[in-house]
Amino acid sequence: MKQSFAVIGLGRFGLSLCQSLTASGQDVLAVDNNEELVESYKEIVTQAVIADAQDEEAMRDLDIGSFDHVIVAVGQNIQASMLATLIVKELGAKHIIAKAETAMHGKALSKIGADEVVFPERDMGQRLARRLLSHNILNFLSISDEYTLAEVQVQNPKFSGKTLAELDFRRHYRLTIVAIKHGKKVIISPGAHTVIDLGDTLSVVGETMDVEYLDKKLSED
Amino acid sequence: MKQSFAVIGLGRFGLSLCQSLTASGQDVLAVDNNEELVESYKEIVTQAVIADAQDEEAMRDLDIGSFDHVIVAVGQNIQASMLATLIVKELGAKHIIAKAETAMHGKALSKIGADEVVFPERDMGQRLARRLLSHNILNFLSISDEYTLAEVQVQNPKFSGKTLAELDFRRHYRLTIVAIKHGKKVIISPGAHTVIDLGDTLSVVGETMDVEYLDKKLSED
Amino acid sequence: MKQSFAVIGLGRFGLSLCQSLTASGQDVLAVDNNEELVESYKEIVTQAVIADAQDEEAMRDLDIGSFDHVIVAVGQNIQASMLATLIVKELGAKHIIAKAETAMHGKALSKIGADEVVFPERDMGQRLARRLLSHNILNFLSISDEYTLAEVQVQNPKFSGKTLAELDFRRHYRLTIVAIKHGKKVIISPGAHTVIDLGDTLSVVGETMDVEYLDKKLSED
Amino acid sequence: MKQSFAVIGLGRFGLSLCQSLTASGQDVLAVDNNEELVESYKEIVTQAVIADAQDEEAMRDLDIGSFDHVIVAVGQNIQASMLATLIVKELGAKHIIAKAETAMHGKALSKIGADEVVFPERDMGQRLARRLLSHNILNFLSISDEYTLAEVQVQNPKFSGKTLAELDFRRHYRLTIVAIKHGKKVIISPGAHTVIDLGDTLSVVGETMDVEYLDKKLSED
Amino acid sequence: MKQSFAVIGLGRFGLSLCQSLTASGQDVLAVDNNEELVESYKEIVTQAVIADAQDEEAMRDLDIGSFDHVIVAVGQNIQASMLATLIVKELGAKHIIAKAETAMHGKALSKIGADEVVFPERDMGQRLARRLLSHNILNFLSISDEYTLAEVQVQNPKFSGKTLAELDFRRHYRLTIVAIKHGKKVIISPGAHTVIDLGDTLSVVGETMDVEYLDKKLSED
Amino acid sequence: MKQSFAVIGLGRFGLSLCQSLTASGQDVLAVDNNEELVESYKEIVTQAVIADAQDEEAMRDLDIGSFDHVIVAVGQNIQASMLATLIVKELGAKHIIAKAETAMHGKALSKIGADEVVFPERDMGQRLARRLLSHNILNFLSISDEYTLAEVQVQNPKFSGKTLAELDFRRHYRLTIVAIKHGKKVIISPGAHTVIDLGDTLSVVGETMDVEYLDKKLSED
Amino acid sequence: MKQSFAVIGLGRFGLSLCQSLTASGQDVLAVDNNEELVESYKEIVTQAVIADAQDEEAMRDLDIGSFDHVIVAVGQNIQASMLATLIVKELGAKHIIAKAETAMHGKALSKIGADEVVFPERDMGQRLARRLLSHNILNFLSISDEYTLAEVQVQNPKFSGKTLAELDFRRHYRLTIVAIKHGKKVIISPGAHTVIDLGDTLSVVGETMDVEYLDKKLSED
Amino acid sequence: MKQSFAVIGLGRFGLSLCQSLTASGQDVLAVDNNEELVESYKEIVTQAVIADAQDEEAMRDLDIGSFDHVIVAVGQNIQASMLATLIVKELGAKHIIAKAETAMHGKALSKIGADEVVFPERDMGQRLARRLLSHNILNFLSISDEYTLAEVQVQNPKFSGKTLAELDFRRHYRLTIVAIKHGKKVIISPGAHTVIDLGDTLSVVGETMDVEYLDKKLSED
Repeated sequence: MKQSFAVIGLGRFGLSLCQSLTASGQDVLAVDNNEELVESYKEIVTQAVIADAQDEEAMRDLDIGSFDHVIVAVGQNIQASMLATLIVKELGAKHIIAKAETAMHGKALSKIGADEVVFPERDMGQRLARRLLSHNILNFLSISDEYTLAEVQVQNPKFSGKTLAELDFRRHYRLTIVAIKHGKKVIISPGAHTVIDLGDTLSVVGETMDVEYLDKKLSED
Repeated sequence: MKQSFAVIGLGRFGLSLCQSLTASGQDVLAVDNNEELVESYKEIVTQAVIADAQDEEAMRDLDIGSFDHVIVAVGQNIQASMLATLIVKELGAKHIIAKAETAMHGKALSKIGADEVVFPERDMGQRLARRLLSHNILNFLSISDEYTLAEVQVQNPKFSGKTLAELDFRRHYRLTIVAIKHGKKVIISPGAHTVIDLGDTLSVVGETMDVEYLDKKLSED
Repeated sequence: MKQSFAVIGLGRFGLSLCQSLTASGQDVLAVDNNEELVESYKEIVTQAVIADAQDEEAMRDLDIGSFDHVIVAVGQNIQASMLATLIVKELGAKHIIAKAETAMHGKALSKIGADEVVFPERDMGQRLARRLLSHNILNFLSISDEYTLAEVQVQNPKFSGKTLAELDFRRHYRLTIVAIKHGKKVIISPGAHTVIDLGDTLSVVGETMDVEYLDKKLSED
Repeated sequence: MKQSFAVIGLGRFGLSLCQSLTASGQDVLAVDNNEELVESYKEIVTQAVIADAQDEEAMRDLDIGSFDHVIVAVGQNIQASMLATLIVKELGAKHIIAKAETAMHGKALSKIGADEVVFPERDMGQRLARRLLSHNILNFLSISDEYTLAEVQVQNPKFSGKTLAELDFRRHYRLTIVAIKHGKKVIISPGAHTVIDLGDTLSVVGETMDVEYLDKKLSED
Repeated sequence: MKQSFAVIGLGRFGLSLCQSLTASGQDVLAVDNNEELVESYKEIVTQAVIADAQDEEAMRDLDIGSFDHVIVAVGQNIQASMLATLIVKELGAKHIIAKAETAMHGKALSKIGADEVVFPERDMGQRLARRLLSHNILNFLSISDEYTLAEVQVQNPKFSGKTLAELDFRRHYRLTIVAIKHGKKVIISPGAHTVIDLGDTLSVVGETMDVEYLDKKLSED
Repeated sequence: MKQSFAVIGLGRFGLSLCQSLTASGQDVLAVDNNEELVESYKEIVTQAVIADAQDEEAMRDLDIGSFDHVIVAVGQNIQASMLATLIVKELGAKHIIAKAETAMHGKALSKIGADEVVFPERDMGQRLARRLLSHNILNFLSISDEYTLAEVQVQNPKFSGKTLAELDFRRHYRLTIVAIKHGKKVIISPGAHTVIDLGDTLSVVGETMDVEYLDKKLSED
Repeated sequence: MKQSFAVIGLGRFGLSLCQSLTASGQDVLAVDNNEELVESYKEIVTQAVIADAQDEEAMRDLDIGSFDHVIVAVGQNIQASMLATLIVKELGAKHIIAKAETAMHGKALSKIGADEVVFPERDMGQRLARRLLSHNILNFLSISDEYTLAEVQVQNPKFSGKTLAELDFRRHYRLTIVAIKHGKKVIISPGAHTVIDLGDTLSVVGETMDVEYLDKKLSED
Repeated sequence: MKQSFAVIGLGRFGLSLCQSLTASGQDVLAVDNNEELVESYKEIVTQAVIADAQDEEAMRDLDIGSFDHVIVAVGQNIQASMLATLIVKELGAKHIIAKAETAMHGKALSKIGADEVVFPERDMGQRLARRLLSHNILNFLSISDEYTLAEVQVQNPKFSGKTLAELDFRRHYRLTIVAIKHGKKVIISPGAHTVIDLGDTLSVVGETMDVEYLDKKLSED
């Protein structure tokens, strides 16, 4: 089911968003008041227009209220970000996502009418920090405050060449092996006789503290 | 095991990174040539210094080569980003992560010596796009090009009040249920008699296309 | 009963406000991030401080939430106006008045938390227009959409030298004479035998259309 | 009787003035050297032209001397404000109103030829201060240095449910009730049996100190 | 008799004025808001102070009203020129000379209170033009609209070696020879037998047209 | 005899020069790289062109070397002033007059090729200083280092109503009366019986010190 | 054999390079993003285009990879210099020469892909220094670290009027005379009887220290 | 014999010059009005001072006229370059070298008083062009308009393994071999039996056209 998207503000974040949406076959209206930027977007999105998001008339002319999702991706101009969000709200947009610079900015956007507020740079900073702090965890997904799904890589010879039965993760680490990636091959719900090799990636699920404990054990000599 | 981190360039991304690392008890050296910024970081990180990352002498004085990880998080100043990366490399830094604005910028950073290049805003744009395009998928983790681990939310009454046995995900969707989140409670490897309620979040693993098929079915009336 | 006032933003409007409040013996805290302005206010208000209204910490240090009235008189910087209003609200200010540049700006301020929004220049423009359009009306006060209290000046010889009984405003104009100003003397509820002279100012009350009719008659030869 | 108006300088004050005059059916010429502003005024006023008010030739071409009223509403550019006033005077304008930033600026404008000088932001600051300082006074009109006409709102139960005879304002407060506003209804010169309800607005006339005394009494428990 | 001078605005014109007055032993107060300029004037004038001529308090502190002559030599900042003139006038200066950029600016300065307005660059342009247009006239002084005193140089052999009697300027040119400069020697009211040599400078007085006629004849072969 | 003039740089000085020359019926080419300025000169001079005086090609195209006089009146841009002078010289201009800002600038212009250097603002400053220092001297003309021709005004009653014979300027002041201006009338070489009235202007010639002595005497009670 | 050259960045260095190459009959493509510069190059080089060297598409359109030599002569914009070098490299340019500002900049250019890095101003500074330090050496060419070819001028009478045999440079200075320039005449491998005159220039070859010894001897009285 | 040098203007060229002179043990005074630059030079040169080269007093204080060589290496500020040259000349400097941007600038510098004018970027552009155009010529030195000393590299197998006698350069190319560089070894005036190897560098002297002919032959298959 196709939806309609309007992306206001074409910085790196807005550009990336437009490209991904367009690549998935969606109709995307890209809006910016920078003529040059809009010109260079012409071929990437369904429609790219030069317009000032702080000008109510201009937004009304674009029928911005009729889009399924409006993303206010305006960069560092906090005034523009806030007035654009208000105008889009006043014009009846159903679902508004706004990009914020600071926590206070985010709070203001919510009050003005943003249904969702995102902090791309803050989030990526947190993500990078978490990755830097783990040793074997490649990626993770927080199921709840306590439970995590994580991909850990086996680089410790002590773990390689053994079957899951021998390693018995459930007993030693209280974790369930959901999948094993061996080169390009993926085994879902692997059996007890599956042998783990050096370099394999295990998808495990369990309590976050247990995942961290495994990460640490995998690093010990 | 404690490691040492140096973060060069204190924009939103650098700030978020510093805060996360410090919150995890790591030693972080924050470097920027903006006096005001550094002043306001003093209480957040282990050490915050005013220094120009394009000045080799200044970097040498900080013994930047001795850090376990150096993150060049310099913002939109591409020249500074590149020269800082080069200087840090020349001074013997073991692991350099550099933030890039464009693909070409990223390529240059790699050639100059960055071990890893990150594109925070591009990545967050892609992530937001993917989330907007799915209906019930809250979050996901790509295991391989073909396999995905995803959290989907059940908002369709047709699925609620039924046991896993009745629904038989493996047969109908070729997916394994890894965990079920019911309110704040999480059930790992749920049994066949577990009943699914409206609003439950299922962690499923399987081929990406099957995950997308489930996502679509969960949206149908 | 003394109250406490904080005025944020020291432009012409803020300055005038501070001077009037201080002249009435009130305690006024004047806040601006322009050092020079604050310096020159030192002698006018109770307390003048240099602080950035967009900096939550700085506002908290001033205990801005404890004031009876906070007036966000920030000039043309719409971002500062909005973030200052939000911060002041978050810090618990009881009564917030914010100055707006445009209607849209005013709407945003209300959503963010302003209890009252004022438009000084718009209002003064309207006032001047109304005065320019009347001939003898010096000042007015709208009681309701239909009724007006107005001061009209008698410059038409046809009206002078006559008693109120002779002129019988109630019959001819459906208006009540509330007061007559003759030079520096003011007569409240003047009697029927009071004589009107050229240059006298009459305070009349009645329907707006009747006031305008009198204004027109006073201009006819 | 229709008059002709020229408004020079289209800031917030000038815009508001133009809109009010045009709304009253007057012919208004709007002048500014900012092309964009003039463009956006085209539909609001009778005529909007791009011209530099410091250019005598340009003003002569507009026949600026033939207008009934010329309002020099130029914003913060004091030079432009003064030269425009001089040129308009030289070209024979009958009635010139000029907007001033400071007292000194206002004095210069008078010397140069302005018939009237207005200080919109200073006046609105004073007005807001006066309103903040009173508790029940909604609006007022100074008849002379000593006498005031004021609208006070009754929010004190001690005053409600009583007739004017019982309350006897003339005796207790030396004030005359000119009108009572009850919801949308207005009673001019109310009789002694009129009952006052909570929320009613009374238009009273009398000495300023007596009005302030009433204001205070209305606030006492 | 010593007089007191205040020169406001230290551009090339103000500097030259200060230097000439000081060289004649006068007391000169030099005022400018440019710290660097004032610093470099310290040794040239009696007193040089940093002050903003648009700030009434600052001017009052300098007791500017007590000077015999105040010269407002402010450069291209027309606003500053006008407000400084007004303030100086308000403070009671006896004699104000103001430098103007344009005719309109000059007119405004007169209205505001300048006793005299000078146009240095316009005047020097006229002077240079007049000199360029004459061939032998080195300098001149207009006595009235019709009469001129001029210095003409004799470079035409037809005039040299002859006595004043032979040349008879009064008959041929209707001019009186007031003085003759021969090298460094000057002869006042030269006698009829005085011989004119090539290179001599004659001071002549008469009607302007006759002076121009002589100038032309002196150029003919 | 008509000559050709090129004026480069159209500031106040250049403008005044162009106007005076054109008013005398001369052909004037006005050159500036400011399009707006040139546009406004079109009607004043014979020819006004937009050109960069630092561009040799552009100057060659104007055949600048063929003019009788080239005046480099470029304002405060010292580089442009010097390069324009050099280019004009290289292109063979016969007579170059250049306007200088400082003494050093003037020296450089001479070395580069200016035949004459003028300092309009310095000269006008000196002129004003001299006038301010005299009391009755309206104007003067230095014949040599020692001799001056001056116009002095008689405002002292002690001098009025007397004949030249009675006053005997030659004996008392060692000065010759060259002319007397009485209202609009001018008397050249006035006779001994001519009576001097209050307000008359005397043109006198003699040694500078004697002129100054007269000036002083005319001021004494 | 004709080659193809592309010069990116048209500052003084790039201009000089283009002119020399074009004068030698080569095909030169000149590229800059400054429209004015490119316009003025049109007649000097084979082809001059306006393009941004940081824009990969623009460079691809120019087929920049097909040139025999690409010289990145971009001036002080270090970012542009580095990205242009990378893009040109990516597009397959065979031979890239890049101009560097600092040693660090030069190192980065090499890593990014420059085959050669030049430092025009550093090199000319060194050259001028060396020339200033010698007395009679007009020019030199370093054959190796130890050997130099130099032109020395004979200005010492002690050396003039003598034959090479008498002077015997090989014995006294361990140098070989390669050529003698006498006025406009040049003698290659001069014979023993050649007489040296004052002002002659000798081309000598030998060890650098010996050349410097000769230079010193030539300066001694 | 030690000399004294003053370098005015510390850009890349000035810096390089200072470093080379100081490395040779000379006394160098470095002058710039940029405080930061001067600060960083403090350790490189004998003396580094902050001073404005356009300020005659400042230059006099440095006794700039007493230096053996003054190099005006001021960058792109043409005005500063010219006035500094004039001031240095006026102060009696014996030998002035000035850096020029354009030919016209160079001409002006000569007229103002520069003994020598250098064009670093133009010269380096020419040098690079010449090197790019030759195939085997590594370096050259123009003895006169017709004669050149050049270093050519032998990369053509046809020339290698042969004795100078066999190759007979004098006959075939009318050139004299002055030196041969074989690896790190240099042979001055090599004998007829010397064998040339691939990679050897020959220093040859002769007419320029003959050198170019050899260069071409060395490139032929």
